[in-house]
Amino acid sequence: MAKDRKPRRPRAETPKGFRDYFGAEVTERTAMLAQIAEVYHRYGFDPLESSGVETVEALGKFLPDVDRPNEGVFAWQDDDAGWVALRYDLTAPLARVAAQYRNDLPSPYRRYAMGPVWRNEKPGPGRFRQFYQCDADTVGAPSVAADAEICAMLSDTLEAVGIPRGDYLVRVNNRKVLNGVMEVAGVLDPADPDRFADERGIVLRAIDKLDRLGPAGVRALLGAGREDQSGDFTKGAGLADEQADVVMGFMEAKRDSGAATVARLRELVGDSKTGTEGVDELETIADLLAAQGYGPDRVEIDPSVVRGLGYYTGPVFEAELTFEITDEKGRPRQFGSVAGGGRYDDLVKRFTGQAVPATGVSIGVDRLLAALRAKGRTSGETQGPVIVTVMDRNRMADYQAMAGELRQAGIRAEVYLGNPKNFGNQLKYADKRASPVAVIQGEDEAARGVVQIKDLVLGAKIAENASLEEWKSQPAQREIPRADLVTEIRAMLDREEG
Amino acid sequence: MAKDRKPRRPRAETPKGFRDYFGAEVTERTAMLAQIAEVYHRYGFDPLESSGVETVEALGKFLPDVDRPNEGVFAWQDDDAGWVALRYDLTAPLARVAAQYRNDLPSPYRRYAMGPVWRNEKPGPGRFRQFYQCDADTVGAPSVAADAEICAMLSDTLEAVGIPRGDYLVRVNNRKVLNGVMEVAGVLDPADPDRFADERGIVLRAIDKLDRLGPAGVRALLGAGREDQSGDFTKGAGLADEQADVVMGFMEAKRDSGAATVARLRELVGDSKTGTEGVDELETIADLLAAQGYGPDRVEIDPSVVRGLGYYTGPVFEAELTFEITDEKGRPRQFGSVAGGGRYDDLVKRFTGQAVPATGVSIGVDRLLAALRAKGRTSGETQGPVIVTVMDRNRMADYQAMAGELRQAGIRAEVYLGNPKNFGNQLKYADKRASPVAVIQGEDEAARGVVQIKDLVLGAKIAENASLEEWKSQPAQREIPRADLVTEIRAMLDREEG
Repeated sequence: MAKDRKPRRPRAETPKGFRDYFGAEVTERTAMLAQIAEVYHRYGFDPLESSGVETVEALGKFLPDVDRPNEGVFAWQDDDAGWVALRYDLTAPLARVAAQYRNDLPSPYRRYAMGPVWRNEKPGPGRFRQFYQCDADTVGAPSVAADAEICAMLSDTLEAVGIPRGDYLVRVNNRKVLNGVMEVAGVLDPADPDRFADERGIVLRAIDKLDRLGPAGVRALLGAGREDQSGDFTKGAGLADEQADVVMGFMEAKRDSGAATVARLRELVGDSKTGTEGVDELETIADLLAAQGYGPDRVEIDPSVVRGLGYYTGPVFEAELTFEITDEKGRPRQFGSVAGGGRYDDLVKRFTGQAVPATGVSIGVDRLLAALRAKGRTSGETQGPVIVTVMDRNRMADYQAMAGELRQAGIRAEVYLGNPKNFGNQLKYADKRASPVAVIQGEDEAARGVVQIKDLVLGAKIAENASLEEWKSQPAQREIPRADLVTEIRAMLDREEG
Repeated sequence: MAKDRKPRRPRAETPKGFRDYFGAEVTERTAMLAQIAEVYHRYGFDPLESSGVETVEALGKFLPDVDRPNEGVFAWQDDDAGWVALRYDLTAPLARVAAQYRNDLPSPYRRYAMGPVWRNEKPGPGRFRQFYQCDADTVGAPSVAADAEICAMLSDTLEAVGIPRGDYLVRVNNRKVLNGVMEVAGVLDPADPDRFADERGIVLRAIDKLDRLGPAGVRALLGAGREDQSGDFTKGAGLADEQADVVMGFMEAKRDSGAATVARLRELVGDSKTGTEGVDELETIADLLAAQGYGPDRVEIDPSVVRGLGYYTGPVFEAELTFEITDEKGRPRQFGSVAGGGRYDDLVKRFTGQAVPATGVSIGVDRLLAALRAKGRTSGETQGPVIVTVMDRNRMADYQAMAGELRQAGIRAEVYLGNPKNFGNQLKYADKRASPVAVIQGEDEAARGVVQIKDLVLGAKIAENASLEEWKSQPAQREIPRADLVTEIRAMLDREEG
């Protein structure tokens, strides 16, 4: 006998590694991005919104932070467009746009972009495969004045969203200085730049992990390699001790003043032409910023900043929040990096064959939002609506008219639209919505031209402390003329905010 | 001999069917969505942002507007999440969220969502495979008061973004009335609801095409079928003449007043229980809206509205802009539909097995933006920045300080960061940026503590009409003390705006 199989119901689940954002999570991000966009706009940057989908060939092999290129993207084959993929950042689409519209765009082209990007990584706790980025870049500006501008703008942006001066630092370095140091250490041959490329990649990623691994861990990765606590072994760059010493010296070259750091770096790069050029650029950036009032309380030269991305060719920068938070294990630690960027002069060249100088910054939107929450700058909560309860379902038009009047006055308000039979459910709903006020009008009140208004915030306070008798006397609820609905509720809400 | 082949450069192209949005295209959409969100918020709706990627099984076979389900989405197989796809609308993710979080969300759950959706359709002129939607839905509200609320909110929303009353109409109908008419016509058997389902699908899509095909075209599709101008034949529902007459009567049932239309619909649905229920609901919605002041100048009952989607189960609505525009062939025509929605009581049931009543509306973001442009409500242009030109590249710090001062005063400003050698290029750049003012300071001016400010708006006006002599006298350019930079430019910009 054939079995009568019911079709299985679909699972109501987000795909692994993806998540949903509700209420204040959405509005606070939107508000923060609007503040950032205002600063970018004032600096002359124009918005660009490219689509989530790009051709795989346009995206190229520049996926940051992964050792194996070509992995890490969501890609599929399309009948009309060939192999396409979801963008993994906002820089690769900019390079494509800069090449595609090169005859129409102003040059230099300052643009900002905000939106989701996707990474095909193993999902893990707190690691999501879709997240927001917020970038600003200048394409076609060879001068480091463009890099200085980005650093100033980043500083202004952090203050605009609510990170006070003193709670952040924009740290600046230059890849050319690092390359100069590599020359001195013997892992970069200017006559044969491809030689030792693998070793240099390992050195770069090792320095980038200084925060997490400490100097000893980095040192191990410069040499033979490093075994972590779980026993996993990471192969090192294989540098000899003297070579590793040079690199470590670079990383620790920061001095008390920018001038002293620059002097120390000059020593370290020795005769290297590239290295000297990099030190000169760092000095220029610091001078330009100082002349505009961006001193060491906001921007500083820090040789330990290298940024993991392979494509940077000159100045690199990072915004670090310097206030302390308590980590998940209860230990105090600095909040850390929320934005980073640098100069990448070769990305557009992939398309056109001509080098186009470019520099930019990317803000980690979720990190910065978390910082604002840690500083109490955003509440994580939204004011709930006034709830007009339904005592008599035949008088729905009256209830909707009440909510309508409140909204006309700019007050967030709604009518309870669930099954109105159980009044307790209506108050539970109001509680779940964090509603400040409930409006109640039964047959009797309607006949007398009055409504009851119930202060739910005050009610909750009383409920915490009051006896049953006190509770029953309901001091948080009172009767008002129907005609005074808007003014009375307005006054109640003002009291609560005040 | 082996040929030395250079790797081909990647093409700098958006994938077919996708596009980029620049400048005002982005900011105007952002501004419009913010205005819409404010109305939705005031009505008690909370934002929800789900990810672009959903499991294929969660999305289901509800893709609207395509005859063949399961087509039309971008889907791929993921190692961790199985078959996944880009969302094709914002309703399917809502149904998934409502089921997934059913124990945590308030009920009813009012939510709004804004963001891109993707359709895997053949790219064509003006047809894009990624576009924005902006939805508001109420899940868990069985009463048609929820549908009335959506209609009122849609009306408020259109006025909030800048469509004046009189230039739009929210038209309301009810699928139950149509089903009642189908019963009368003999293409719906309440005892065997699956019978004639294909025929009813063809009827639905035919009525939905009334605007485009006219009554004769719809009539042909109700019968044997219709051959279009290109000779393509579309199979019809195969209704007999008397049956088709009943359906045509429904579609043309609109009378001068809502009450008269309701009376006509009551005649048409005869004894059908479903049909009578639908007419009652329509009457209730009209009464609720009228009581709140949403009369026939804003909302009307219109039996020709059916909406193409298969999943609607009760009230359906559509916002139409009634002002005329000139189409691409120079003929005047009504702007047409910018939003639509309805009640769908079965979408959440797919996941949970329990029916959850829901109703909502989706705004066509690009259509509404186009309407605002047609009405001159948005300019399509952004105020360009003040350009500080570079006469002496060694004095970059001074130029950046000028731009910094202007920005501190809230004025959009930037330093020219291209190669400063050719001054003409700097002015061409300012022109391309639609810059209102250029600031010029050479060695001489710097020594004397002055700057030249050049009114580019006035300059352009003079250039149109002036002789070479007049042009050379440069009345649009004047010298001011460096210390007065901000006040003078502020005054110049105010004059231009005023």
